[in-house]
Amino acid sequence: MAIETAINQLRNLLQGRLVTTRAILDQHGQNEAYFPVTPPDAVVYPLNTKEVSEIVQICAAHSCPVIAYGTGTSLEGHQLAFRGGISINMQKMNTVLAIHPQDLDAVVQPGVTRKQLNAELRATGLFFPVDPGADASIGGMAATRASGTTAVRYGTMKENVMALEVVMADGKVIRTGSRARKSSTGYDLTKLFVGSEGTLGIITEITLKLHGQPEAISAATCSFPDVSSAVDTVIATIQMGIPMARIEFIDEIMVRGFNAYNGSDLPEKPHLFVEFHGSDSAVAEQASQFGEIVKDMGGDAFKWSSNAEERAKLWDMRHNAYYAQKSVRPGSVVQNTDICVPISHLAEVILETKAEGDRLGLTFTVVGHVGDGNFHCGICIDPSDKAELENAKIFTQNLAMRALKFNGTVSGEHGIGVGKMKYMAAEHGDALSVMADIKRTLDPQNIMNPGKLIPMN
Amino acid sequence: MAIETAINQLRNLLQGRLVTTRAILDQHGQNEAYFPVTPPDAVVYPLNTKEVSEIVQICAAHSCPVIAYGTGTSLEGHQLAFRGGISINMQKMNTVLAIHPQDLDAVVQPGVTRKQLNAELRATGLFFPVDPGADASIGGMAATRASGTTAVRYGTMKENVMALEVVMADGKVIRTGSRARKSSTGYDLTKLFVGSEGTLGIITEITLKLHGQPEAISAATCSFPDVSSAVDTVIATIQMGIPMARIEFIDEIMVRGFNAYNGSDLPEKPHLFVEFHGSDSAVAEQASQFGEIVKDMGGDAFKWSSNAEERAKLWDMRHNAYYAQKSVRPGSVVQNTDICVPISHLAEVILETKAEGDRLGLTFTVVGHVGDGNFHCGICIDPSDKAELENAKIFTQNLAMRALKFNGTVSGEHGIGVGKMKYMAAEHGDALSVMADIKRTLDPQNIMNPGKLIPMN
Repeated sequence: MAIETAINQLRNLLQGRLVTTRAILDQHGQNEAYFPVTPPDAVVYPLNTKEVSEIVQICAAHSCPVIAYGTGTSLEGHQLAFRGGISINMQKMNTVLAIHPQDLDAVVQPGVTRKQLNAELRATGLFFPVDPGADASIGGMAATRASGTTAVRYGTMKENVMALEVVMADGKVIRTGSRARKSSTGYDLTKLFVGSEGTLGIITEITLKLHGQPEAISAATCSFPDVSSAVDTVIATIQMGIPMARIEFIDEIMVRGFNAYNGSDLPEKPHLFVEFHGSDSAVAEQASQFGEIVKDMGGDAFKWSSNAEERAKLWDMRHNAYYAQKSVRPGSVVQNTDICVPISHLAEVILETKAEGDRLGLTFTVVGHVGDGNFHCGICIDPSDKAELENAKIFTQNLAMRALKFNGTVSGEHGIGVGKMKYMAAEHGDALSVMADIKRTLDPQNIMNPGKLIPMN
Repeated sequence: MAIETAINQLRNLLQGRLVTTRAILDQHGQNEAYFPVTPPDAVVYPLNTKEVSEIVQICAAHSCPVIAYGTGTSLEGHQLAFRGGISINMQKMNTVLAIHPQDLDAVVQPGVTRKQLNAELRATGLFFPVDPGADASIGGMAATRASGTTAVRYGTMKENVMALEVVMADGKVIRTGSRARKSSTGYDLTKLFVGSEGTLGIITEITLKLHGQPEAISAATCSFPDVSSAVDTVIATIQMGIPMARIEFIDEIMVRGFNAYNGSDLPEKPHLFVEFHGSDSAVAEQASQFGEIVKDMGGDAFKWSSNAEERAKLWDMRHNAYYAQKSVRPGSVVQNTDICVPISHLAEVILETKAEGDRLGLTFTVVGHVGDGNFHCGICIDPSDKAELENAKIFTQNLAMRALKFNGTVSGEHGIGVGKMKYMAAEHGDALSVMADIKRTLDPQNIMNPGKLIPMN
């Protein structure tokens, strides 16, 4: 069989860095979504770009699927091997290759995680801000166009990846940009690969923008009488141009989960968690302007997290929302989904969504990077209850359609993977055929993460 | 002949909005670069997307070149009809279709110019910041990935175009995004078309990010004893994270041109022209921090342009650099070129460039959006002097190669057009073949602005 021949050739190349033991295969077929375990035929651990190119060439010769694997934290099944094939685990390609403090950029291998990068940057006074919660690999974050809590201020991976090195479907290695801050010389291949979910090529090197560590940081929580007043506060804040570093909406159900999971004692009302970055005086000014809006909208007084430790605790709590959701309904499994809409529609969309979830009898949380119009629903499901599973499906589908109705998108940051391919035609119309044309051209055998992102029929 | 049949069919469709009079054709073959007049066979003036689609369908049926035309202010010959064909002048598609103040975005037709848009935005408290100097059309700015003086703060067209409507080479109309601030749903076609210079499709609608008009604006000029101290000031400013709204380098030759053309009396030394945006206190803080750097680097005291009129005069002077260059050497023609490098190399690259220009006996200016590492050389040439023309060519080629040597790009903002196609292979290597694959797939007949941007052999 082709796959066996491919594996034999790969074993000659990589020796012990090709693995086919059951436990390892299964681990690479695990996911934080709701898909069954879907392992590859083998896992390889390349050391450098040359090896990745050789791996892809062998796979291409045998029409064998190739799936890049970072830390496996996708919520839409990006890393699953539905058609078998080779999972390329990037954990040994985890070197920060260069830091250029003068130019505010760094060059990293795809297996470097965001926390590792920030640890290596600490002494430079710089940091890499994109923060999806999980300690994901930079390669995975680039491939899925990750964002998270700080995107409202610092942008998503789209804004923070300057250039890539990519192994194409035939093994050719290309560079998609320079270290110049801007360029007008040809098609923006960097942005084509950022968010392509491994379907066009394998990212082997990433040049990232860095940012100066803010002189002052201040974080706070505040509660609101209802969803609308919290969301209206966000809209007013963004419109006033207050450069929020983070502005997160937490609904009253999620607050209950936080209190149960973290032992906090937040009032069970809708909250905003916010953070300000800047000089001492800028942070003070931002906080005062924001405070006035909160007051106007009927919010309660801030609870400040004034020192670094308290702040870390606050954002750890926010980042562990995925786990805290389960505390809302012990014994449940959680299905997570996200959408993004223009912020003028945010209150309406959240209220419609909550009303529908209540009508369907679902237990669910709403948490969001609302400064961007992006929010998540975590549905706590009893997996043995078929009617409830069906209602969760209806809820998720209607949520996606609601996003489109309000000029939004079916995913702000989780991506498509396999989970949301069914919405691609509804969101993109004829543009989807252009995406499929590009996919067919750059990956004529459909070996690069096949069956993900772009429906090919 | 095919072109005549196409023109007859187009005339049936558009009646008086198809023009073949000599003067109009020649006007569409004019350019601000150094190319001979290269007119199309006909100029059409569509009213809407449907007409653009019909025009492209007729052209596709007859394999006839299609060139979108905005305001004709390209510096690299983007709009020229080297292979004849149909120039689509967008001046009648000049409506601001929607302004969404709550979402900080606007939807415009491609013929809207940036000054027109800002005039229509004035009452909203918002503005569109991208400012390439010329009052270019938004469609042209998107197609060429324009930037300019404010990109250091607000980004280029790449960062400010949220979504596009595009007519493809077969007449199909696609939308490349929603009005959501971020999305992880498929290939970033928006960024693929931004900067594609009309070679993949015709942009018929643009959704743009808007920004709040700053509460306070303050501008200043300061002079320096030499190039290095001015450029080192820029590097330190960017590294400190001072959010400059503009930071422009002007060499002593350009200052001489400004003084002659505008009647100003700036000292004939390297200058920085800067602008600060923000709240009153933020602007004061930024100005004070910047002032300290200037002092450390040996610069002279600021000359403030405190009111709106003085500021407008300052930036008009900067924007008219193209014309002021001629005053450096009356009777000369000016060849403009631009490159962009990582800012850590900026002083070295500018000094090498000035030394080479002097060695070659050329008269030239250096002006730049140096916060991004981007600068322009304007070479003032006696067109009757063949040796000088040859030296200008050597200078320009070596400048492009110098950009690549220092990890930069052969154009930061002017683009490739026809002028810089010869450098595409050197800059992009194997990535150029990926661009060519995309071009062939999306425009199999090579009718979309043929002979530009991507060398197809």
